[in-house]
Amino acid sequence: MAEHPTASLDDVVHQKHRLGILTVAAEAKRVEFGYLRSTLELTAGNLSRHIAVLEQAGLVAVEKGYDGRRPRTWVSVTQAGQAALDAEMSALRALVERHVASGA
Amino acid sequence: MAEHPTASLDDVVHQKHRLGILTVAAEAKRVEFGYLRSTLELTAGNLSRHIAVLEQAGLVAVEKGYDGRRPRTWVSVTQAGQAALDAEMSALRALVERHVASGA
Repeated sequence: MAEHPTASLDDVVHQKHRLGILTVAAEAKRVEFGYLRSTLELTAGNLSRHIAVLEQAGLVAVEKGYDGRRPRTWVSVTQAGQAALDAEMSALRALVERHVASGA
Repeated sequence: MAEHPTASLDDVVHQKHRLGILTVAAEAKRVEFGYLRSTLELTAGNLSRHIAVLEQAGLVAVEKGYDGRRPRTWVSVTQAGQAALDAEMSALRALVERHVASGA
């Protein structure tokens, strides 16, 4: 039989908060840290930790700068991150379709 | 704004192997341990650990018995497990649709 859809899920991308970061960041050229925090309802510490995991895996790029005098952090999805997110979404779509088809 | 789809994901269900166990088990009245193991390509130890987490959360029921003289373990999804899986699938569907709609 074909590989089960969950077998192709990658924990780096699949973890719920990292999946949230990637999906939100992929909707714009780049997103600001505070926007991610409020959209995903995460603490700054928790968000930072998950961004670091994604950055270390090369899936997001982090830029630090200023908006006027306020320090800001922006997150953008890299090409590898976009590919990883697309793969995750394909696997999730297959899983949802299989679930619907099984009538479970 | 509405809650982001990933905010409603529950780690007990969302973790990739547990999501695999629940989706495979939900496709039948009950599934045998060895079938889960080969379908999900997990070691016996890893599968046991994840089944224990699901059982402790009340999402699956585990029956031990015999098939002839061979000891067997069967896993079935409880009513609570089915509800949790349905909620996960709804959130995943929303996430996939949002991803498609954003053209990301």
